[in-house]
Amino acid sequence: MAMARVPILVAVALMAASASCSAWDPTIRMVDDAVAPLIHALRPLLGSGGQLGSRGGVPCDSWRLGVEAYNVRDWKTVPANCEGYVGHYMLGNHFRRDFKVVIDQTIAYVDGLKLNGNGKDVWVFDIDETTLSNLPYYATHGFGARPYNATSFDAYVLEGSAPALPETKRLYYKLLKVGIKPVFITGRTEDKRAVTVGNLRSQGFSGWMNLTLKQHGFKGSAISYKSAERKKLQDAGYVIVGNIGDQWSDILGAPEGARTFKLPDPIYYIA
Amino acid sequence: MAMARVPILVAVALMAASASCSAWDPTIRMVDDAVAPLIHALRPLLGSGGQLGSRGGVPCDSWRLGVEAYNVRDWKTVPANCEGYVGHYMLGNHFRRDFKVVIDQTIAYVDGLKLNGNGKDVWVFDIDETTLSNLPYYATHGFGARPYNATSFDAYVLEGSAPALPETKRLYYKLLKVGIKPVFITGRTEDKRAVTVGNLRSQGFSGWMNLTLKQHGFKGSAISYKSAERKKLQDAGYVIVGNIGDQWSDILGAPEGARTFKLPDPIYYIA
Repeated sequence: MAMARVPILVAVALMAASASCSAWDPTIRMVDDAVAPLIHALRPLLGSGGQLGSRGGVPCDSWRLGVEAYNVRDWKTVPANCEGYVGHYMLGNHFRRDFKVVIDQTIAYVDGLKLNGNGKDVWVFDIDETTLSNLPYYATHGFGARPYNATSFDAYVLEGSAPALPETKRLYYKLLKVGIKPVFITGRTEDKRAVTVGNLRSQGFSGWMNLTLKQHGFKGSAISYKSAERKKLQDAGYVIVGNIGDQWSDILGAPEGARTFKLPDPIYYIA
Repeated sequence: MAMARVPILVAVALMAASASCSAWDPTIRMVDDAVAPLIHALRPLLGSGGQLGSRGGVPCDSWRLGVEAYNVRDWKTVPANCEGYVGHYMLGNHFRRDFKVVIDQTIAYVDGLKLNGNGKDVWVFDIDETTLSNLPYYATHGFGARPYNATSFDAYVLEGSAPALPETKRLYYKLLKVGIKPVFITGRTEDKRAVTVGNLRSQGFSGWMNLTLKQHGFKGSAISYKSAERKKLQDAGYVIVGNIGDQWSDILGAPEGARTFKLPDPIYYIA
């Protein structure tokens, strides 16, 4: 029974993080540093003896690189032997370090842009795992190593409590400052508009130009949906100077945008 | 003076590797395991106190991920603080592990193909760092942390001694077996045809359909050159079922091929 408390501790720590607009900043890092060692204790409860290395399966760091470089595609779940690896990666500093390098590249790119200042420059953001983090959910649902459960995930989304990814916020406000308008294009469906707006606002995002959600019943791929929405922006005279997401399906498909950025996400894959 | 011998030892070990058709296989791994610890000793001679971490610069593992996921672009040299990191990565098992996961994906992809067996299916290979490894050169030239030196690099290429990347060879012979024809499209120039053919043959490659080298004086980008060559194949009725390279410029640009694969290369960038 003593073990049963561990996930609650983690959940409390993550919820404390999510209640703040600056989740994952250095203050929260201290929380996570305390949380990270609990991952091992969590293993038995989460039904996995996740390995840090390759024992019993694919080498997890190479698999993750394969995912990020778009060599590993169409995967359904994190390899069973990599649940512990992905947990450590996400809750420790590694994920944030990788994420920050991508955002540093976006900022350098923005600094190098020659903008015409006519109000037609836009930047496309995905939401889940790009702007808001669902890590509080995945930390208690096997870090992507268990099959996707739409019911429990939707219940989490409807709480509207997902913490901001602070590095993305840094990019977001940089763009507003230089006159590039943020546009959200998300795979969340239209019925989640209110909770999504509320979640974004509570996490400190405001001033976006558009928030496009998927029409309920849309059956196409993420690539076809998202590229069609970008096409509409372009046809309306906007210039997509940048496009950022955690999935390759966020950034592939013409018109991609003048430059694309792939944020790290070893937890799930969307075609 | 004792220190001066260290690079020679490395060179000898690497040349021994390159003399074998099965360089980097388990036999050679033993050589590399002996070589790897010498990297630290090499640092003073190579003019760098390379760090494994982020001290004094970018975090090297995150920078490498950024390169592989095409977030970090147009870089000229490996960050100065990452020379030691890249050296360890390349000479240890990490690079080979990452490389193998990509090739495992290619094999799984090939196994899932429905081929029409009309002799029109081809697979495009880049050469340098994809089929042949120039690591023996880069191991004694700062692992990409020093500016590119065309003179010394060309001299190395003209030796024709670059070892095969054994995992690529595994893919290559798998393709021949199932009736997919290998095609090389390389940024090496036409004047290097003889040495390139000789190097490929000495490393156990044979049976390719085409070996396309760049015309001397071509001024366009690698993307424009390589995609134009792929277009010629397509226009001649060939179906490019796969395309593999270590540079994003090997695999971007229509027609890309039905599926592309990005091999790891943290040493240099070609636009």
